[in-house]
Amino acid sequence: MELELIKKIKKLADTQKKDSCRKQVVRSIGDDCAVVIPGDDKELLITTDTLCEQVHFKLSYFPPFRLGSKLASVNLSDIAAMGGRPKWALLNLEVPPGLANAKAPFWTAFFKGLNQRLSRFGAVLVGGDTVSAPQDRLSLTLTLIGEVERGKAVYRSGASSGDLIYCSGYTGEAACGLRLLEDLPSPCPLPRQVRKRLLLKHLDPEPRNRLGTALREAGINSLIDVSDGIASDLAHICEESRLMAVVNQRMLPVSRALKTFCKACEKRKGKILHTALAEYVLFGGEDFELIWTVSPERSQIAEQAALSVMGFKPFLIGRMEKGSGCFLDTGRNLIDISFKGYEH
Amino acid sequence: MELELIKKIKKLADTQKKDSCRKQVVRSIGDDCAVVIPGDDKELLITTDTLCEQVHFKLSYFPPFRLGSKLASVNLSDIAAMGGRPKWALLNLEVPPGLANAKAPFWTAFFKGLNQRLSRFGAVLVGGDTVSAPQDRLSLTLTLIGEVERGKAVYRSGASSGDLIYCSGYTGEAACGLRLLEDLPSPCPLPRQVRKRLLLKHLDPEPRNRLGTALREAGINSLIDVSDGIASDLAHICEESRLMAVVNQRMLPVSRALKTFCKACEKRKGKILHTALAEYVLFGGEDFELIWTVSPERSQIAEQAALSVMGFKPFLIGRMEKGSGCFLDTGRNLIDISFKGYEH
Repeated sequence: MELELIKKIKKLADTQKKDSCRKQVVRSIGDDCAVVIPGDDKELLITTDTLCEQVHFKLSYFPPFRLGSKLASVNLSDIAAMGGRPKWALLNLEVPPGLANAKAPFWTAFFKGLNQRLSRFGAVLVGGDTVSAPQDRLSLTLTLIGEVERGKAVYRSGASSGDLIYCSGYTGEAACGLRLLEDLPSPCPLPRQVRKRLLLKHLDPEPRNRLGTALREAGINSLIDVSDGIASDLAHICEESRLMAVVNQRMLPVSRALKTFCKACEKRKGKILHTALAEYVLFGGEDFELIWTVSPERSQIAEQAALSVMGFKPFLIGRMEKGSGCFLDTGRNLIDISFKGYEH
Repeated sequence: MELELIKKIKKLADTQKKDSCRKQVVRSIGDDCAVVIPGDDKELLITTDTLCEQVHFKLSYFPPFRLGSKLASVNLSDIAAMGGRPKWALLNLEVPPGLANAKAPFWTAFFKGLNQRLSRFGAVLVGGDTVSAPQDRLSLTLTLIGEVERGKAVYRSGASSGDLIYCSGYTGEAACGLRLLEDLPSPCPLPRQVRKRLLLKHLDPEPRNRLGTALREAGINSLIDVSDGIASDLAHICEESRLMAVVNQRMLPVSRALKTFCKACEKRKGKILHTALAEYVLFGGEDFELIWTVSPERSQIAEQAALSVMGFKPFLIGRMEKGSGCFLDTGRNLIDISFKGYEH
């Protein structure tokens, strides 16, 4: 099985189009190591993420094409969150007996999803390892190496007091998608388009890599991706930058789809509806939007850069101040929301 | 649990001594990616290996310190097998409920083993991912990035017809160690020192990284490490170099410990003893010795380099010829031994 799967991976890696990234690959699968040539005057960005069946996904609802795509996206998003360009990926598989046949349609779809997402962002698969797992649980690890101009990576630690806080898009929708898949099967009356949008936000989030590099060039101060929810991820910026973040409740990016979901599926109205919306937006994980902080002077340049990459304006959601922790300003009081949010 | 384990890893990574490798680490654990600076005019070597409980090890007999050390070694050996220098490592953990306490002595010992082995070879841990696994099986993945002077990596594909084949040390001993741990508990009367040697060969093999770089500098043609057994790994060189390997049975490196083991535990004598010895030497995996091929003209330089690094001469075991496949020359006939050997 292992050899068959490795051959499949090798074939896929070989057929990837020979773009600029490919030229830097001296040897991919088929030797003791992959061999690649880093660019001159570049830093390497290295990230890795493991997705486990039962913990991060269930095969009962996760189409294999989307699973491959999402595995790529969660790692691509980490490179985006440093302002870098993704380059080389390694795949580790722990394969349960039920998926041991390398020719199963599952693997064709999975590799197609993985490969398409990696290629679209300029990355290639160059190696990995495959293990037959003794019990019925699939485990997927992707390691991704990216590049950025030397000294130019954007850290969580770069925020300054007075910085404006921005978010690249609507959050909370991926959490709705997960709720639909896990807890709310059919009795929740949602328009088909809304349901589809929310499901796709969980199953196949789009990483914001073009935005990440554009923001870096625009001179922002700190950057992170929303994997655990705005509250948690902003708290990381606070911790690393030794500052306080104040998020304005009125400025939270609430999508129409999220509103429809909360009214229909959570059966929320009035004040409780507003609380539910804020909770999804702040604590919902895995949207993979970017959050950044930027000095007021450079904020317009960064906004313009985001607009030209995304086609819409990013959301200004708050301000960095002296202090510590991440707070929500409700208009009446400040609520500490640090590290509240999504856990797998 | 995850945060606790990550803090533990971070602390360990931070306390690693600030050697030359460390200077190239801009940021390790604590941001979206690790950030490192590759050396000028270097190629990157990238490798990854997953060790699964039940498949690759059992916690009933594997001391956690040795497990950490071995996880490092299997990856270090892949870098050695390209002639490179190990630099940066990432660790992925799938942690079962029984090991969820980050303060358990298991983790202290494991990280000590991992850390010591990595540092000794000049590598540092810079990142990773930790997942709580839903069932009782530990899974460990290490990804290791190394460097080598640009264009100087030694491949499996570089062998030439007429090359001499060398092996850096005794093989088959790790397989004996595994047999002792898995199948032969007590009734096998072995001298204590022999038993210890064989067990350590399986539990804590030494990668040959200094040898790998010395051989590269000595101008060898092809190189691989013995992870699946001489027969299998030499067959890889044959495949990639499109040649045939002929291994001379009389030249096989048979250790005294292996002989003692085969006599005592396999209860073999006479001709059958010789067959058993050859089988262990050729098909036993995980010794992590290096096999290389070198032109007759440069063979003495490489031998000398190996001698000065290891303190003893490597074993000349055969020759590369035109053809395909890996064969054993018994003196009477040629036996095809390609890809026979160890499977987890």
